[in-house]
Amino acid sequence: MHENNGVIKKMMIILSKGTLENVYAAFVLANGARMEGIDAEIFFTFFGLEAVHKKKLEHLHVATVGNPAMHLPTMLGGLPGMEALATSMMKKEMEKIDMPEIPEFLDILSASGVKLWACKLAMDMFHYKKEDLYEGVDDVITVGDFYKESAGEGVHMLFV
Amino acid sequence: MHENNGVIKKMMIILSKGTLENVYAAFVLANGARMEGIDAEIFFTFFGLEAVHKKKLEHLHVATVGNPAMHLPTMLGGLPGMEALATSMMKKEMEKIDMPEIPEFLDILSASGVKLWACKLAMDMFHYKKEDLYEGVDDVITVGDFYKESAGEGVHMLFV
Amino acid sequence: MHENNGVIKKMMIILSKGTLENVYAAFVLANGARMEGIDAEIFFTFFGLEAVHKKKLEHLHVATVGNPAMHLPTMLGGLPGMEALATSMMKKEMEKIDMPEIPEFLDILSASGVKLWACKLAMDMFHYKKEDLYEGVDDVITVGDFYKESAGEGVHMLFV
Repeated sequence: MHENNGVIKKMMIILSKGTLENVYAAFVLANGARMEGIDAEIFFTFFGLEAVHKKKLEHLHVATVGNPAMHLPTMLGGLPGMEALATSMMKKEMEKIDMPEIPEFLDILSASGVKLWACKLAMDMFHYKKEDLYEGVDDVITVGDFYKESAGEGVHMLFV
Repeated sequence: MHENNGVIKKMMIILSKGTLENVYAAFVLANGARMEGIDAEIFFTFFGLEAVHKKKLEHLHVATVGNPAMHLPTMLGGLPGMEALATSMMKKEMEKIDMPEIPEFLDILSASGVKLWACKLAMDMFHYKKEDLYEGVDDVITVGDFYKESAGEGVHMLFV
Repeated sequence: MHENNGVIKKMMIILSKGTLENVYAAFVLANGARMEGIDAEIFFTFFGLEAVHKKKLEHLHVATVGNPAMHLPTMLGGLPGMEALATSMMKKEMEKIDMPEIPEFLDILSASGVKLWACKLAMDMFHYKKEDLYEGVDDVITVGDFYKESAGEGVHMLFV
């Protein structure tokens, strides 16, 4: 019996990047889904793994070079300190609009039932161990497992 | 009654980046959808907002550093002027293949019925006001609103 | 008759970037799909085309600048040689975990039935010809063709 009719039931978000703006995008999309009663799961892979790596998750940066939209001259964007400045500016703006910082945001996502998966292949590539990760991470899984988790009516995937 | 059978009815495109190549990718995907009779909506968020910011949409750049595929030595890519050069080259190639420039492309998308949404959170973060935006923008909406717009059979989401 | 019930039948992956980490992400997702009995197709567009360009596919690089997650000081990331170093490091790690290099990976994808499509618009923009491309590429198609290929129950799209 088909009774879904296009209701969104679950967002499966693949986070492959470790830049602050992409991590926030993934977290905001997952959190926004939960606020609409939609399930959400995040699969941390490649550099996205840094967002759940205990020693790195507080040190994520905004990309200043390679991101012309920052409106910094490229040479300036490349100077030591500019990335830190852009990062601190973004964090300040985020705070003003009541956006939690990454560690707190992870707690919120975890508490609201967002499943957090670490990609096995990326773990192997970076030599990370499960104990290096934020304790709210549900498990280390393969891409195949991710596809199994993604089966079902009303599931949408996003690659961030 | 389920009668969709996998027909694509609507593309929901989240544009989070302000680099020329990503903005074009989103616009081409939306425009291509319309040409196939598929609805399309673009949700401009984070740096993607620049593509509908009146004062910025004519000054989007190609990313030269952080984009090894440009085949510029990185140091060269970082030199003042190189980003402008790559941008001007891309614009020329785009013109040759009859791709409209960003302002004209926005008009085409708007005229063909593509809905253009600005993300409220990003508006707040960058202190943008509705009147700063291209007048074809339909509204400023939340992530929750975006999910509501995305409900329905045959809807696909893309994160650019 | 609706009998899909959310089974994933096909992954349609749009690869728009030419950085090694993004190409690998797309290939791993396509390959992982095939291993689960899921069809997979990759649409190479914009800089993603480089991953199937005969003369370029062996020279893809990791983005070191514009990628703060690399944990290289930005100035250092911009130095000649650093991108090559990061690339060679990533390749070594990939080899350790038995990940094939790009040319071999393309052969594996092709042999396992992953359809490889080159985007016509990007071909025109870069002045590439069909004979410049890896011979396993199935065809050069338009965005409209891509949407036609994407119709059907259980199809998911990803934009990498």
